[in-house]
Amino acid sequence: MSYEERRNKLYRWMAEERVSLAMFEHTEARQDPAIRWMTGHPGDGLLFLGFDRYGKSHSLLVPWDINIALIYAEADSVIAYTEFERQPLRALQGALAYFKIPMGCKVEIPPVTPYPLFLHYVGALFDFEVLCRNGGIHREVEVLRAIKDAEELGIYRTLSAITNELIHVLEQRIRSGELRTEEAVALFIEAACRKRGCEGMGFETLAAGPQRSFGIHPFPAYTGGDFAAPGLSILDFGIKYAGYTSDVTLTFARPPLSRTQERLVALTERAYRLALAMVGDGVAAKTIAAAVDVFFSNAKKSMPHALGHGIGLEAHEAPALRNRADNDWVLKPGMIFTLEPGLYDPAQGGCRLENDILLTEAGVEVLTNARIIRL
Amino acid sequence: MSYEERRNKLYRWMAEERVSLAMFEHTEARQDPAIRWMTGHPGDGLLFLGFDRYGKSHSLLVPWDINIALIYAEADSVIAYTEFERQPLRALQGALAYFKIPMGCKVEIPPVTPYPLFLHYVGALFDFEVLCRNGGIHREVEVLRAIKDAEELGIYRTLSAITNELIHVLEQRIRSGELRTEEAVALFIEAACRKRGCEGMGFETLAAGPQRSFGIHPFPAYTGGDFAAPGLSILDFGIKYAGYTSDVTLTFARPPLSRTQERLVALTERAYRLALAMVGDGVAAKTIAAAVDVFFSNAKKSMPHALGHGIGLEAHEAPALRNRADNDWVLKPGMIFTLEPGLYDPAQGGCRLENDILLTEAGVEVLTNARIIRL
Repeated sequence: MSYEERRNKLYRWMAEERVSLAMFEHTEARQDPAIRWMTGHPGDGLLFLGFDRYGKSHSLLVPWDINIALIYAEADSVIAYTEFERQPLRALQGALAYFKIPMGCKVEIPPVTPYPLFLHYVGALFDFEVLCRNGGIHREVEVLRAIKDAEELGIYRTLSAITNELIHVLEQRIRSGELRTEEAVALFIEAACRKRGCEGMGFETLAAGPQRSFGIHPFPAYTGGDFAAPGLSILDFGIKYAGYTSDVTLTFARPPLSRTQERLVALTERAYRLALAMVGDGVAAKTIAAAVDVFFSNAKKSMPHALGHGIGLEAHEAPALRNRADNDWVLKPGMIFTLEPGLYDPAQGGCRLENDILLTEAGVEVLTNARIIRL
Repeated sequence: MSYEERRNKLYRWMAEERVSLAMFEHTEARQDPAIRWMTGHPGDGLLFLGFDRYGKSHSLLVPWDINIALIYAEADSVIAYTEFERQPLRALQGALAYFKIPMGCKVEIPPVTPYPLFLHYVGALFDFEVLCRNGGIHREVEVLRAIKDAEELGIYRTLSAITNELIHVLEQRIRSGELRTEEAVALFIEAACRKRGCEGMGFETLAAGPQRSFGIHPFPAYTGGDFAAPGLSILDFGIKYAGYTSDVTLTFARPPLSRTQERLVALTERAYRLALAMVGDGVAAKTIAAAVDVFFSNAKKSMPHALGHGIGLEAHEAPALRNRADNDWVLKPGMIFTLEPGLYDPAQGGCRLENDILLTEAGVEVLTNARIIRL
């Protein structure tokens, strides 16, 4: 079973690094779908991976909702969070006792642990070597999650097919005039994806008619206002299937378009093709993002957001495709990520084109068929 | 204008505490609606409050989406995040230069700053005294936000009226059989609240028919399955108006009910009345939550979640109403919070009743009229 295989990869890493216990936290304040990735548990909770005193690997899930965990989660042990007064430190202390971790051993906590809370942990766990670092096991999980395994690729086959069917139906219904408002479009997607077996939306749908498409993330996300009226309308949505999300953006261009609007469309399409042509095994993600930034800059434009991002159990995950000094992600087979060049003009509206890309050993596969649709 | 008044309260606090610059962060990784509370900006960004070299207070907003900020935000200065390569440390360094903060001064960063990032900040800002603490300005904002001001109370009047109208319509349509599935109920709320001027949902609607109501947070949040069929169905929703959210839970009880189900309903209603009767100025929130826990315990039941929580720009904010040693919130006039006792049985389903409560100088006001509805 894949959950166990995923955990086994981490036990091997822990054994090499001599980490005796690792803590993962998925709570309201700090969300980490790694717990779902390693156990299938879809709700809040803590997960501990560790070795008992005989050196045997073991996973302990501490779910907030034990009833949900008993149905969905696969872990060696499950203990309700209420047993630890719903306090992460109590649960961590409980796990140390449960695994009988000897004093002096390495215990790794999430690198997103706030500094004051870190001090609290360290004060309470002075018998152990508490690790809270960016390059530790949580990074290892991030790297593993960035390369989708066979089961995940299967999920993305289904997910992409549903996404593409919705794009097709949306185009028909927008062309026919059946869907005329931002709200109608967004609610149609919400209902239609669930009818096709999806868990829900990967994120709140962004639907912006020509008056509001200048916003990268329009506010509110959608209104009762016109969608696909003359000018540029942006629709950015993702649907969630078996925990995984797609993420596509369509622009609907209805004449008459101004010369500026035509130029935004043409530049966005060219930037997208430029980026797609650069995707390949071993290519630094930053290089592609930088090339698009240069392309726009030569056209006296600038894109106010990143070129793309990995997708999976999170709408935004590794690898990052952005032009920033600290971005060291390199594209590899098995990665699924978006390319989403866009330009925004406060007076003329915006244009963005986003598809989900799978890099395989054989080459590049565009999973979704979002595009700039001329009405 | 209230945004400026709110900021002025914080400048006074900063002057007393000799903090020269305070940073607030609302990004994907660490969300803090305090920025909206202080400026009206509804999107991602950073906010800096500080004093310039003449001792004059000043607010600097660094929004991710400058076009949205220029419409909605009220701050003394606005500089696009792209000017700082969308890196928080760069923006913080830029703010220090912009305000001309002298070396050695106190600079406060959010207490949710991860430990590794904190080390990075401290390394880069060795000329300043970097504060990252639980009892600082961010706690002060939390305390101020917990007491709603006149403008916020006005928003809650409208918000509660819309919420109550929806409860009324939902009851009618569920009784008439017009809304029969979890999905139909959830999508109806989504559309209906926007028609009434809401921004959207405060959180994903949870609609669980009798087969799924054992989950505190059912998974998925709603499905195409039956709602309000015989047994206990739970509907937990909140709508967002002008940034603020309501949060109510109704239970629909359709005969025949088992004796166990009748008992869950009766205990939940009694716990709710018990809690409501205890609410008052100066009462420790923990005391009320503890009383409900004791009440359930005497009935050989236990509630697997907190009794309630403050609501506002966040669906869960201060004050916490939970029975935990570290909960030191005391109820005061101006606070708006939920009471939401609930019991869950894996075989028989669950029951929860949640309303929004406003404590005033004059007494207790139940803003919403959710209840356990017998069909």
